Amino acid sequence: MLSILQKGQADTAMIYADNAATTKMSKAAIEAMLPFFDTLYGNPGSPHEAGRRAQEALWHAREQIAAVLHCSAKQIYFTSGGSEADNQALCSAAAIGERSGKRHIISTAIEHPAVLKPLEQLKKRGFDITLLPVHADGIVRPAELIAAIRPDTALVSVMYANNEIGTIQPVQEIGALCRERGILFHSDAVQAAGQLPVNIPRDGIDLLALSAHKFHGPKGIGVLYADVNAPLKSLILGGEQERGRRAGTENVAAIAGMAAALAEANASLDRSHKHLSILRERMLTGLLAIPGTRINGSLTKRLPGNINISFEGIEAELLLLLLSEHGICASSGSACASGSMEPSHVLLALGLSPTEARGALRLTLSGETTEDEADQIVCAVSECVSRLRNA
Amino acid sequence: MLSILQKGQADTAMIYADNAATTKMSKAAIEAMLPFFDTLYGNPGSPHEAGRRAQEALWHAREQIAAVLHCSAKQIYFTSGGSEADNQALCSAAAIGERSGKRHIISTAIEHPAVLKPLEQLKKRGFDITLLPVHADGIVRPAELIAAIRPDTALVSVMYANNEIGTIQPVQEIGALCRERGILFHSDAVQAAGQLPVNIPRDGIDLLALSAHKFHGPKGIGVLYADVNAPLKSLILGGEQERGRRAGTENVAAIAGMAAALAEANASLDRSHKHLSILRERMLTGLLAIPGTRINGSLTKRLPGNINISFEGIEAELLLLLLSEHGICASSGSACASGSMEPSHVLLALGLSPTEARGALRLTLSGETTEDEADQIVCAVSECVSRLRNA
Repeated sequence: MLSILQKGQADTAMIYADNAATTKMSKAAIEAMLPFFDTLYGNPGSPHEAGRRAQEALWHAREQIAAVLHCSAKQIYFTSGGSEADNQALCSAAAIGERSGKRHIISTAIEHPAVLKPLEQLKKRGFDITLLPVHADGIVRPAELIAAIRPDTALVSVMYANNEIGTIQPVQEIGALCRERGILFHSDAVQAAGQLPVNIPRDGIDLLALSAHKFHGPKGIGVLYADVNAPLKSLILGGEQERGRRAGTENVAAIAGMAAALAEANASLDRSHKHLSILRERMLTGLLAIPGTRINGSLTKRLPGNINISFEGIEAELLLLLLSEHGICASSGSACASGSMEPSHVLLALGLSPTEARGALRLTLSGETTEDEADQIVCAVSECVSRLRNA
Repeated sequence: MLSILQKGQADTAMIYADNAATTKMSKAAIEAMLPFFDTLYGNPGSPHEAGRRAQEALWHAREQIAAVLHCSAKQIYFTSGGSEADNQALCSAAAIGERSGKRHIISTAIEHPAVLKPLEQLKKRGFDITLLPVHADGIVRPAELIAAIRPDTALVSVMYANNEIGTIQPVQEIGALCRERGILFHSDAVQAAGQLPVNIPRDGIDLLALSAHKFHGPKGIGVLYADVNAPLKSLILGGEQERGRRAGTENVAAIAGMAAALAEANASLDRSHKHLSILRERMLTGLLAIPGTRINGSLTKRLPGNINISFEGIEAELLLLLLSEHGICASSGSACASGSMEPSHVLLALGLSPTEARGALRLTLSGETTEDEADQIVCAVSECVSRLRNA
């Protein structure tokens, strides 16, 4: 086996197929950021021309983002990313629940660690947490959610789309049934934003988290959507930035870049959805021709650029190493969990065995992925799977 | 009065004298960031070439920063800025104290809100907080700190240099006396880094906070220095980034920009100190010629680019509006407190009356401020003070 791995890196160009981990910034996003580095560099809190211009840029970005999400600019709070936004949403909702004696939270077994970890902490603080199962298709059933609701349910937190298998949850239905019952609904939309038409009033969402670097914006910046009157709990205390909901000088450049990236992604949703669906179809035809292959999660209710596939008897970590030799950047799951040899909690929730879960390869495409690259990926995967099976 | 303000903005170039609020990014910092936007854009957590390169960049940045601070790269944790770093330092130190029944914290009356607000919260949780006074010079006295220390003192938190009046605290002395007594010492070095030779082992610091945008780096990124074995409490839970101490995809571009900015600032410490001292001397000669003028805080133990000055009978807010007409960006204190009409807690701590405190003008220069700009500022201030006094 080692001999295969030691063959050295082929001198090929890199093919990036890990867009669920992070994306290349778009030109529009970079261009939107640059002026704020050394021209419009004021602190938005400063009472002078430089500060006023920075403050204007913040509000312009808030309006751009609000237009995409169909909400008001005042409902947009900037955070340092999706994890912070998820954490703040959950802490805030828990505090609201606590005030009326409601200490039950419903979420799902396939959430991102930025949701699951704060829930574990809330459990230690006396909250009751119900994690809904998903079926083999990776989708939560609203009927099971209804059955789990109790009089003391404070919050339902269901992700918009999953980061590993790309399955899209029935958010609109969940939003409606939460609203009918007066229960807060949070959705981690980190993977969905820029790929699906997120619409806050239609979806009945009370709290929503976004991360710019998942839709070709910069790293280190995200959004928490919340009602303007929601008593958000600050995770970071200090200055009165973000209307007292988040201390620290606003990251003006990144905020402008995020807004530009989201507006751009949203304007090309249909085109990019079509492009990705065609590419994925093409790739699946090739990949499913490999013997002993299974697709993980629903193929219909799924982000168009996501493929999560297992090959019988193959360890994904080895497959990834071989794919690297072909210059292909793919993953075996979440970048947040990498380094750990634990099987994916998402795949286990689909009913895969730990061995099966360790065999899953995630390929996530972007609007920039070409047909040629897609074909090269399929070719390389076929070849590497054969090599590993024959090794 | 209104007629003066309505005269309209003069069409002059902007003179930026609010570098304590935020700074213009340096060319080196911008150049260090750019490759990470659309070339080396991998997620440092990803197990492939793109991820590996991003991870390398993180460690290179850690080493650059560690070299400046005289610590090890493993002791550098990246945060979203100075406020987050201060919050995390205080929460962590409080948790450490709590475990051995120590619930007393000593800090000062002139700390930044990113320290004072978390301390207020800790007070609600049962901690005893002693805020040391400062003398009229804006400096804490080590003897008074010693007198305040109790057997249950868990933490001493004293800022390296103040953000409003620029006074430099006797950090090295405080560090030594904390170390002798086995008490943790945190220092908010947000204003000091890049302006003073911060040296962690010499200064005896256990926890230290930095913010890149104060030393010509990008906004939205900072550092928490802590021992590699310190049980830091995560403010943001989720992935295992920053060795489990801070969840969320690392802001690689901003981290690279911050490291470049800090290395650059550190390399020119002496030159910039000299330049700023000469400029300030020149400005003070002019400003002190205005009748009814007082300098707030020590002139010797002070950041070289800081002037904080009051003019008898003048409201700083009005003075700032008039200075705006001359294209001058200055402030009346912290950008974090702007919008609030509360007098500065720092100036009150020096013994100023609320009226006197409301009359303070802060001018903070940078290495880029020219003699000509300095002269224009002095001229404009003189003129505006006269106009206001004669209005």
